[in-house]
Amino acid sequence: MTRVLIPWPDLDVPAGLPVEVYDGRGDFPASAGDVEFYVLPYDTYPKPFELLGRLPSLRAVQSLSAGVDKVRPLLPPGVQLCNGQGLHDLSVAEHAMALIHASQRDLPRWIRQQAAGVWSREHTRSLADSRVLLIGYGGIGQAISRQLLAAEAVVTPVASSARPGVHGISELASLLPSADIVVLILPDTASTRGLLGAAGLALLPDDALVVNVGRGSAVDTDALVAEASSGRLRAALDVMDPEPLPGDHPLWTIPGVILTPHVAGGSASFYPRAKRLVEEQLRRFSAGEPLLHVVKDS
Amino acid sequence: MTRVLIPWPDLDVPAGLPVEVYDGRGDFPASAGDVEFYVLPYDTYPKPFELLGRLPSLRAVQSLSAGVDKVRPLLPPGVQLCNGQGLHDLSVAEHAMALIHASQRDLPRWIRQQAAGVWSREHTRSLADSRVLLIGYGGIGQAISRQLLAAEAVVTPVASSARPGVHGISELASLLPSADIVVLILPDTASTRGLLGAAGLALLPDDALVVNVGRGSAVDTDALVAEASSGRLRAALDVMDPEPLPGDHPLWTIPGVILTPHVAGGSASFYPRAKRLVEEQLRRFSAGEPLLHVVKDS
Repeated sequence: MTRVLIPWPDLDVPAGLPVEVYDGRGDFPASAGDVEFYVLPYDTYPKPFELLGRLPSLRAVQSLSAGVDKVRPLLPPGVQLCNGQGLHDLSVAEHAMALIHASQRDLPRWIRQQAAGVWSREHTRSLADSRVLLIGYGGIGQAISRQLLAAEAVVTPVASSARPGVHGISELASLLPSADIVVLILPDTASTRGLLGAAGLALLPDDALVVNVGRGSAVDTDALVAEASSGRLRAALDVMDPEPLPGDHPLWTIPGVILTPHVAGGSASFYPRAKRLVEEQLRRFSAGEPLLHVVKDS
Repeated sequence: MTRVLIPWPDLDVPAGLPVEVYDGRGDFPASAGDVEFYVLPYDTYPKPFELLGRLPSLRAVQSLSAGVDKVRPLLPPGVQLCNGQGLHDLSVAEHAMALIHASQRDLPRWIRQQAAGVWSREHTRSLADSRVLLIGYGGIGQAISRQLLAAEAVVTPVASSARPGVHGISELASLLPSADIVVLILPDTASTRGLLGAAGLALLPDDALVVNVGRGSAVDTDALVAEASSGRLRAALDVMDPEPLPGDHPLWTIPGVILTPHVAGGSASFYPRAKRLVEEQLRRFSAGEPLLHVVKDS
């Protein structure tokens, strides 16, 4: 008589609500027939998605990601979808800061030197005083902005349309020439695809750093490979196009390029925030109240 | 007739003040006999220090470091000494943040994976929500604190004596058990030497991170090697004892330990701040006004 599938055992569940743990790794739950509310396990794609078609009583799905492009087309008709907006903001912002610091302060050099047991000092770039163009100014962009300002960088935020204190994306060409660092935090949509191509990259000053923690499609990979291979630009990318990056792709080995395998959202700070949201949604479901973060109504 | 030695050519020098550039790398300046004010080149120890004894007209020395332990005993009698307090604060704070982010977000793992062309994802720790004990709460500690708070870490500052909002160093034993990350920003003095030894390290919770951007002597290296080798503690160190670290020292190869070769202070953000200070000191010297940051009077 399981009414709800939850991904973790250690949750506060309302008294009398029958739940079962399904973490996305083991067998499908036996009690699938009664499940009305399914909290999708995070980051175990694609197995939990297959279960969507095997839950005849399903009324609502809670995704723990902000982007729901993959789950949306798999939803049976009449099923409500809630997303995980905000759960990953801090984790992604923090990873962006890690990539920026690593690039500015030459961490790959020191890590190579450590592996070789070599003590050799060089002065590095700074983040302080750097002019940072933040392209994408939702929850993640704003969290990055707060951390950059605390580090005494000079921040210029850019969003899809201009508002007080925020530039519109249409002004991008006039902003790129004075950016020491450009950070992309954009979803994959028709208007963001290829946004930073050869022409935009060419407008950046020499030695500028391109950071991407949104979706890989926002940057023209071939154009970035050309500018980074020549040594004119640097890059630090958590997302790429294509992804996963094939083993023989030129990006892997370009000096001045740091790559991480799409791990910005998956850090410890996600869990307490996700658990708080799921507990609140269980309370609402149990009490018959409207769910939060509904992105598709039943 | 050179009255002042300056380390860089691109400075605003008061009209009529005879200056000569000595950057610490080439030959000693020929006009040493008339030099009254000597701005010591930064980070080119020991050559510029030898010059101190060859300047018979010397009245004042400007160091660009906050710590002047090495230069003080070399000063001829009657020579005033000014230090570079604050010039490196942002640079050091930023490097501390780089080390913390790199440790929490497993950057060495991703950099190794990149070198091997491997795409393999794992969730990591976060800095957000982490409880950070800042030991040393001068200009650098306060700059680190602002950046940690913006990253939504929980900061507990500790200084030599307690004041409102700041714990005293005598409370250290009661604070270590609840620190996920401990950051040391301490000078080398009789009271800081060996401050974090085997007993203190044993009080830290499992998996805690020890970060040192002050002086290596504050941590008992052998005790840290023991706790890190067992995998119980992690470390990220810009300063060590001994320094430079010998090529066969066990610290180099312990998993969970990141080492950088005392480079926290030497980044780009230092130069504009140092140049502004030197220009102000030249103006004061030329006008016969008292110099700033005097740490030893003539």
